[in-house]
Amino acid sequence: MNCNSIGKALVLTCFGESHGACIGAVVDGCPAGLPLSEIDIQVELNKRRPGLSEITSPRREEDKVEIISGVYRGYTTGAPICMIVWNRDIDSTPYESIMIKPRPGHADYAARIKYGGFNDPRGGGRFSGRMTVAYVMAGAIAKKLLSLIGVEVLAHTVQIGSVGVGDEVSYDDIKRNVYTNPVRCAVPELANKMIEEILSAARDGDSVGGVIEGIALNVPAGLGEPIFDSLDADIAKMLFNIPAVKGVEFGAGFRVASMRGSEANDQYAIRDGRVITLTNNAGGIIGGLSNGMPIKVRVAFKPTPSISRKQKTVNLETMSEEEIQVAGRHDPCIVPRAVPVVEACLAFVIADHALRAGKIPRVIKT
Amino acid sequence: MNCNSIGKALVLTCFGESHGACIGAVVDGCPAGLPLSEIDIQVELNKRRPGLSEITSPRREEDKVEIISGVYRGYTTGAPICMIVWNRDIDSTPYESIMIKPRPGHADYAARIKYGGFNDPRGGGRFSGRMTVAYVMAGAIAKKLLSLIGVEVLAHTVQIGSVGVGDEVSYDDIKRNVYTNPVRCAVPELANKMIEEILSAARDGDSVGGVIEGIALNVPAGLGEPIFDSLDADIAKMLFNIPAVKGVEFGAGFRVASMRGSEANDQYAIRDGRVITLTNNAGGIIGGLSNGMPIKVRVAFKPTPSISRKQKTVNLETMSEEEIQVAGRHDPCIVPRAVPVVEACLAFVIADHALRAGKIPRVIKT
Amino acid sequence: MNCNSIGKALVLTCFGESHGACIGAVVDGCPAGLPLSEIDIQVELNKRRPGLSEITSPRREEDKVEIISGVYRGYTTGAPICMIVWNRDIDSTPYESIMIKPRPGHADYAARIKYGGFNDPRGGGRFSGRMTVAYVMAGAIAKKLLSLIGVEVLAHTVQIGSVGVGDEVSYDDIKRNVYTNPVRCAVPELANKMIEEILSAARDGDSVGGVIEGIALNVPAGLGEPIFDSLDADIAKMLFNIPAVKGVEFGAGFRVASMRGSEANDQYAIRDGRVITLTNNAGGIIGGLSNGMPIKVRVAFKPTPSISRKQKTVNLETMSEEEIQVAGRHDPCIVPRAVPVVEACLAFVIADHALRAGKIPRVIKT
Amino acid sequence: MNCNSIGKALVLTCFGESHGACIGAVVDGCPAGLPLSEIDIQVELNKRRPGLSEITSPRREEDKVEIISGVYRGYTTGAPICMIVWNRDIDSTPYESIMIKPRPGHADYAARIKYGGFNDPRGGGRFSGRMTVAYVMAGAIAKKLLSLIGVEVLAHTVQIGSVGVGDEVSYDDIKRNVYTNPVRCAVPELANKMIEEILSAARDGDSVGGVIEGIALNVPAGLGEPIFDSLDADIAKMLFNIPAVKGVEFGAGFRVASMRGSEANDQYAIRDGRVITLTNNAGGIIGGLSNGMPIKVRVAFKPTPSISRKQKTVNLETMSEEEIQVAGRHDPCIVPRAVPVVEACLAFVIADHALRAGKIPRVIKT
Repeated sequence: MNCNSIGKALVLTCFGESHGACIGAVVDGCPAGLPLSEIDIQVELNKRRPGLSEITSPRREEDKVEIISGVYRGYTTGAPICMIVWNRDIDSTPYESIMIKPRPGHADYAARIKYGGFNDPRGGGRFSGRMTVAYVMAGAIAKKLLSLIGVEVLAHTVQIGSVGVGDEVSYDDIKRNVYTNPVRCAVPELANKMIEEILSAARDGDSVGGVIEGIALNVPAGLGEPIFDSLDADIAKMLFNIPAVKGVEFGAGFRVASMRGSEANDQYAIRDGRVITLTNNAGGIIGGLSNGMPIKVRVAFKPTPSISRKQKTVNLETMSEEEIQVAGRHDPCIVPRAVPVVEACLAFVIADHALRAGKIPRVIKT
Repeated sequence: MNCNSIGKALVLTCFGESHGACIGAVVDGCPAGLPLSEIDIQVELNKRRPGLSEITSPRREEDKVEIISGVYRGYTTGAPICMIVWNRDIDSTPYESIMIKPRPGHADYAARIKYGGFNDPRGGGRFSGRMTVAYVMAGAIAKKLLSLIGVEVLAHTVQIGSVGVGDEVSYDDIKRNVYTNPVRCAVPELANKMIEEILSAARDGDSVGGVIEGIALNVPAGLGEPIFDSLDADIAKMLFNIPAVKGVEFGAGFRVASMRGSEANDQYAIRDGRVITLTNNAGGIIGGLSNGMPIKVRVAFKPTPSISRKQKTVNLETMSEEEIQVAGRHDPCIVPRAVPVVEACLAFVIADHALRAGKIPRVIKT
Repeated sequence: MNCNSIGKALVLTCFGESHGACIGAVVDGCPAGLPLSEIDIQVELNKRRPGLSEITSPRREEDKVEIISGVYRGYTTGAPICMIVWNRDIDSTPYESIMIKPRPGHADYAARIKYGGFNDPRGGGRFSGRMTVAYVMAGAIAKKLLSLIGVEVLAHTVQIGSVGVGDEVSYDDIKRNVYTNPVRCAVPELANKMIEEILSAARDGDSVGGVIEGIALNVPAGLGEPIFDSLDADIAKMLFNIPAVKGVEFGAGFRVASMRGSEANDQYAIRDGRVITLTNNAGGIIGGLSNGMPIKVRVAFKPTPSISRKQKTVNLETMSEEEIQVAGRHDPCIVPRAVPVVEACLAFVIADHALRAGKIPRVIKT
Repeated sequence: MNCNSIGKALVLTCFGESHGACIGAVVDGCPAGLPLSEIDIQVELNKRRPGLSEITSPRREEDKVEIISGVYRGYTTGAPICMIVWNRDIDSTPYESIMIKPRPGHADYAARIKYGGFNDPRGGGRFSGRMTVAYVMAGAIAKKLLSLIGVEVLAHTVQIGSVGVGDEVSYDDIKRNVYTNPVRCAVPELANKMIEEILSAARDGDSVGGVIEGIALNVPAGLGEPIFDSLDADIAKMLFNIPAVKGVEFGAGFRVASMRGSEANDQYAIRDGRVITLTNNAGGIIGGLSNGMPIKVRVAFKPTPSISRKQKTVNLETMSEEEIQVAGRHDPCIVPRAVPVVEACLAFVIADHALRAGKIPRVIKT
């Protein structure tokens, strides 16, 4: 059954494999008349490209996008937009054995059961973080659509291992600092500590996890749908589709469990003639609808499962216990490269709902 | 656009309002030949019924289900199953004013923007926790389907305010104890502390939040779909569609952020000829697929937003700041009544994926 | 899998059985603020009600609609609208045997294979023409939505057996005459011949087929979507979901096969400052899009399969050949009662596309 | 909104433009383990390739398919299969003016209204018959899936202009003869008359229409879903998505209108221990379900709208009436090249329903 498409008004279909010919994204439902070129997409892809620094995988992918449909003379046509990144720097030799000896923390075992051994194992195939290239390509279009109505989407690393950022970071700091350091942290002095946390894990042949916060500013109130297409539900679904995500929380998140209503409720006030709330424990979404305050979501990423340390696994042919050391080129921490992915996912879902709500016209006249 | 249906192989469509004529659920895609009667549904509904104890709302709804289609001579026919609970004990007087003075923590303001004031405000209309009656009805069918393949779904309260349950609760304790106390806690001695936590908040005219853990046992490996219908993504989406949910995490959840890979990875072993993992930090789902271990998900609920304490709000007609004290009948803690809802949501999504995967036949021969 | 919902912006979910408790329709996606009462629905239902004259079945269903959700104080709320017609005049005795001896021309045999014998056989269950009560209820809402943008939907009987209406009938004749005679023919003198055609078949214990033409006036140009949601494709799909339909054609339809391009092409001209076509062989749809001319579609209905004449069938238990005489109450010609159903289907699809195209606002201010 | 995907278990997403970079098809939901190579697709594409004879357009497209995802070591992996045909022989000069002066019989005018002039006009853009390359690619996969359960799909030309084939053609004649003549007619002597019909139109600077019959053999009984995913409704929808189709009928089709029930009903009998019907007026589908008899559907195609004869049109900028002579390279009759397209559409829908019904396993073991 169809599981490679998401969205209702703006629909992303993703194809391709980590070590196959390409990663592809088809975006359907984009209004006609949006100025769009490969540069718009490339800018976003460059944010997640591997090979950026000593803390990331040595795989050197240029990740150069080609738009092969849906754009004519610099404008979207209303037809589906297919974007492709061809895979180049592929070394699939280390993956021969994982069909038999599944790597802990990876989908190898479950995938083998599901696909009877026919799934492409190279680089994790469809289960690779590389799939998020497609999310970023779609997110780039979503961001352009959102910019038409003034919505801005940000993300930043708020935790790597034991190093965490407090709540006091300003939106300006985020905009200014995130892409100036390899860990995508809005607080430069913490960035260095995070880098050290990653290098320390790498030196141990290990990896480390973290948390990313996504933020959307200027979202109009009333986006989202009650019951089964809640804005938070749709955002959460999209984020959990990023490999390695284990938790998603909005606003005060899990802290609400120990709060009282009088503390958790965001009380209303009027500022400059607009309704606002005095706190934002809701993270900008209430009853599944945006309430006009910044949308805030935090996303927990597990440590990269591929580590060079010895781990226990099983041989699925002999059904005996064995050990494994995972070779291949891997980031010791996936979090920094996931920052633009969280941005993309958040932008995509909000753009989908903005289109559903008729906030963006079907033909854009600029 | 359609936002009141969810699922792909098993599809739930929900209709009705908190203080309207009824709450209704249409379940489409249920195989023919499943023995089903109103008692199967009623048993689950009874678990969430209001008016159960001093810690819940005094609204006295019988919540008696009627199956009005899809069942013939005690068996499902393959046609859509419509289940209805007629609303009886309705007192809508307190809700007159909320269209103008939105209640903090409720969807009133966002809904007014979205629907231009036409939404039914009585009891929160579509934004009421009462909508979860539909989830529970659908979940009851899902549970019956899952029982055919040995899958069992549980849920229990693991935190109310400052009172938390540790990780050591056994599945047997959960099965035995959850519905023996009004807070649905698997540890009887903690149940009393939780009750006190709730009563203390109630005495202060306040409310309190909490966390529920959902568990699914004996889920076959390989359920779920990579990329956009990940099992965890679908479960998270369904859970965030429960009003008041602010966070969802699987397995070690947000704790993965401070873990190293060697700690977070669930290493493989063989027990009784079956592949298992030695830990379950993944919560039974990896790469979006079930891995054969118990599925574990934790869900954070905010405190009931309706409290009798004075709060700041605004008058949307005069655009001035005012105060509000929310009348009406409300639970000081929504968590206990959400336990069967979490069960239902978890069961529904797993049943949907089991049907997608062909694990449950289209015609059931018993 | 879900097969009881249709539409993308306006979504109809249908439940119920011919001789079950009810026929139900849930319409999701209707904008808030539409004035709607049961009378609006009842007017349309009355057009298809059985028991209207000597040419229809003696089943006496009042077909009284109840709206049980989605309407508050006379206006739609934006929530799903559930409408129910309770079945009253049920006599299921004649249907005991059809699970074993399938009726020629009915779905009995195929349904038994599909559902393993669990489908509700009474009155044909889900395969009954009575399901179209749900289509008409949804169509009534669609018509109200379309009236907001001036679109008018008509249908009329253009053939019963050997009696056919020529092409020269005016829209005014259709509006004026269709519901003044029991065969829903726009030409009164032909109506009598059609009645005679039906009575003649009935006297022979037989039945007769016919053709209905559906027309939509004032449809704005540009509705529909190229490739897979063509306006004609969606209309055809909806119409083929009416039981007994065997053919659908737009404009010149099958006659285009023997035409040349110079004859079939509708050439453009300008009238009163508007672009029109000089002919309408396209039936108002070209490339899957409305072109601003009247939409015209013709729908072929087979004769009612239930006839009292002896027919050959098989006994599925003994796997031997037998004869059958179908008892029960049946119209000798289904066409007259299908006229409002064709109207409803056409209106529903056009309203869905008008909503998709943003031609009808999400909140209606009247 | 998403309009470029179709199917539920097997989902085709189509992208590309007539004179853009490529035509692409993503097929999602194909089981893992199906042997698949580019040759399987190419064989079907070759059947519809332009430039085949004097009766077709001189556009010389090689139409060479590349599979760029979803296949590993010769087998499908369960991941989405993306197939691309790069456009090569493009001459877009003749299309400059159609945005202003719409061609009669084409979507130019309606598309301009819908897309505000941003749609790609070259070769008709998304409204070109060239889009059916994607249908044929998807159909090739569908045929391979159907072959696993013995289903065979055929199509043949039954009418071109005034030359028609009677009902007596055998399936063997169709299999043997269709692709031996350029008009895809199963009766060789009529093929020549059809060719003459086309050449005669071409000589007049004109074009001609026709009818194609699609047939599916050995379809198991019980495929399809009642109400809104009837097998006939889904087939009709897919066929109406082929440009130029104006009518679709099953079995006796429009002839049922003048039949009596005793004549139209297909009576049951037993042959070789199997239930069959003595006639096949239903065309193999009843109540929306396959009944085990051959599925038969007839599809009416209008004459190619692009003709070199002078036609009336309008200038949309000056809003004045003008004349047009359509240049470019066009088939004088689209029917022959649509034969493999009808095959593909029929195969695709039946494969989708066979997967929905669980008739084809999710992992294919060969």
